[in-house]
Amino acid sequence: MKASAKKTIGKLEKLGAAAVREIKSGKNPSVSIPIRSLSNVSFNEKKHIIELGDDQQRRYFFNASMARKFMQTYLVAGACKELVESGKTTSIRDLYYITKHTLADDRTNTFDEQEESDPIIEDLEVGVDALREELNLFASNKGSMVGDMTLIDSGDRIDLRRMGSGGWSVPSIVEADIIKFVDTKAKFILLAEKHAVWQRLNEDKFWKKNPCVLLHGNGMAPRGVRRLCQRMAEELALPLYVLVDNDPWGFYIYSVVKQGSINLAYESMRMAVPSARFVGLSSGDAKKYDLPSRVMLRMNDQDVARAKQMLAYPWFQKKTWQKEIRMMLDSGAKYELEALSAKGISFISEEYLPKKIRDGDFLA
Amino acid sequence: MKASAKKTIGKLEKLGAAAVREIKSGKNPSVSIPIRSLSNVSFNEKKHIIELGDDQQRRYFFNASMARKFMQTYLVAGACKELVESGKTTSIRDLYYITKHTLADDRTNTFDEQEESDPIIEDLEVGVDALREELNLFASNKGSMVGDMTLIDSGDRIDLRRMGSGGWSVPSIVEADIIKFVDTKAKFILLAEKHAVWQRLNEDKFWKKNPCVLLHGNGMAPRGVRRLCQRMAEELALPLYVLVDNDPWGFYIYSVVKQGSINLAYESMRMAVPSARFVGLSSGDAKKYDLPSRVMLRMNDQDVARAKQMLAYPWFQKKTWQKEIRMMLDSGAKYELEALSAKGISFISEEYLPKKIRDGDFLA
Repeated sequence: MKASAKKTIGKLEKLGAAAVREIKSGKNPSVSIPIRSLSNVSFNEKKHIIELGDDQQRRYFFNASMARKFMQTYLVAGACKELVESGKTTSIRDLYYITKHTLADDRTNTFDEQEESDPIIEDLEVGVDALREELNLFASNKGSMVGDMTLIDSGDRIDLRRMGSGGWSVPSIVEADIIKFVDTKAKFILLAEKHAVWQRLNEDKFWKKNPCVLLHGNGMAPRGVRRLCQRMAEELALPLYVLVDNDPWGFYIYSVVKQGSINLAYESMRMAVPSARFVGLSSGDAKKYDLPSRVMLRMNDQDVARAKQMLAYPWFQKKTWQKEIRMMLDSGAKYELEALSAKGISFISEEYLPKKIRDGDFLA
Repeated sequence: MKASAKKTIGKLEKLGAAAVREIKSGKNPSVSIPIRSLSNVSFNEKKHIIELGDDQQRRYFFNASMARKFMQTYLVAGACKELVESGKTTSIRDLYYITKHTLADDRTNTFDEQEESDPIIEDLEVGVDALREELNLFASNKGSMVGDMTLIDSGDRIDLRRMGSGGWSVPSIVEADIIKFVDTKAKFILLAEKHAVWQRLNEDKFWKKNPCVLLHGNGMAPRGVRRLCQRMAEELALPLYVLVDNDPWGFYIYSVVKQGSINLAYESMRMAVPSARFVGLSSGDAKKYDLPSRVMLRMNDQDVARAKQMLAYPWFQKKTWQKEIRMMLDSGAKYELEALSAKGISFISEEYLPKKIRDGDFLA
């Protein structure tokens, strides 16, 4: 068994042993879970990540309002232990089916819907301090990767320089015992929000002319892509550049990649890349790169509300970011990455990005 | 330039030349486009595909209600010709940005929204008889592939036996000049609706024990996955087995893979795989494989309405399919593929599928 699997099993066994100890000593068995609500989340200015505080909630077995969740917590923990022991991985949907049972006496289901088991998984992650990926639970993989790098995935040697037009599909479990980086001349990581942009950059062999690894997240970067970016940024000391639409959603994607999210604050330390830099589209780019006005989109009410919220976020308090967001609000304009194609289909790979990177024209 | 590109350019030039000819002879320039509405779609019982009929609609330049669409048709055709000539591909969103212009005199836009340019692309596909992929337009790639096969993608040799846990991300343009099959011992193609199931089968190395190529479409199979399945089924003479949820949506996915869809009937001849077989989940599987009742889901009103519609479709008139759909309706029950995990996490790869394939327990 892998060392990492042993470690996770140890954490899960500790959870079980604690309850057994309480039962044997005649106490009310309980489990302590860090609270995942906004009140227990804060922005760590020094580390530049959104993190979970120390507030805990104790869940008792002999308590009418807690017994069901108590049972569910141990049920999920038991199923995850079996998964890790067998070396198999599965989806959170599958875990719901695996742990759904009908209790014989009163025909109650252990879980009625997946909406009940998903939060228990999050409880367990923070409760035993193990990401769901360490509990062998995967999410859908929706990002792809190519670039100047060879890696090992589950023993297979994968040369990301020779992945054709499709690329390597980034799995959601990318821990060090599964994915190893073996050979790279990359100078940076480029994470694009959009698949279409990634495709353009791959077709133009951008990563060859500008040695890098090139990923996309098909919208909000999925867990595997974020974790992989973090590992590459740390282990290979590579800067991460994030390329998103010039709209509040694009800015939000960048901010989740950089410092994590409020909803899943616990993950930040394992997924966030505080050194990430925003490479575009910047609110000033339309003027700087002389984009025609026909590719400009009007911000809608939702965009405006979202941008105003962002102005207040602690992690957007830097002067440069305040200016960036205000510029968007003042102009009422937003731009998609595809707007650059009005200047030529390869403008993004041949002029826009090389100039941005050469000039160090980033926001951090 | 590639032969296939030359052929497509020839088709586009023919379209342009026809208009020029009409202009020179003082006629009202026009373009003829096959009608894409239900009235011009039929099910070809012999070929077992949904196909477009011969009805055409003529679009004139000197006609107040047609002039805009006439202009748009040639604008898109011109942009596609440039794409194919330059050997570059792009997304339909990008094409919208490329072809959106403001006409100087009255500040009218050539296109106001992408909703205007997308149907023009479909017109052009049927008008010049070239799939959008041949016009160098790609869709998002959301499927992955592994298995007993080596292929060439854009000159890169890709061994699908060594793709780790992630797999090769199937691009949306998979024509023969880009993707070549070089070496395979696969006995069949297995297309799973769900990524989680694909992941399970890949982790269990199902494709090694049962030599095959293994794909998923992350829900409805995207164009690239369907086209690739068709090419493999025809060029390599491999049977295609489709594995979907036991619900009307799952049946629909199977039916689109097999005979195409009404909306995009034109594509059927290039995407449909009439020999495809439905391997599960079948409405009788719950009983046959002794699934516990707790994994059963109740059909909702929408499911029932959808299933009743299917009973009337010409391509579901076979007795076996009528029985299959009626069994679902009579029981009011549906099952997800994940329901099989109630029998053990690898039940699907070690027992269910091998037995299905051994027994030839399919619907066609």
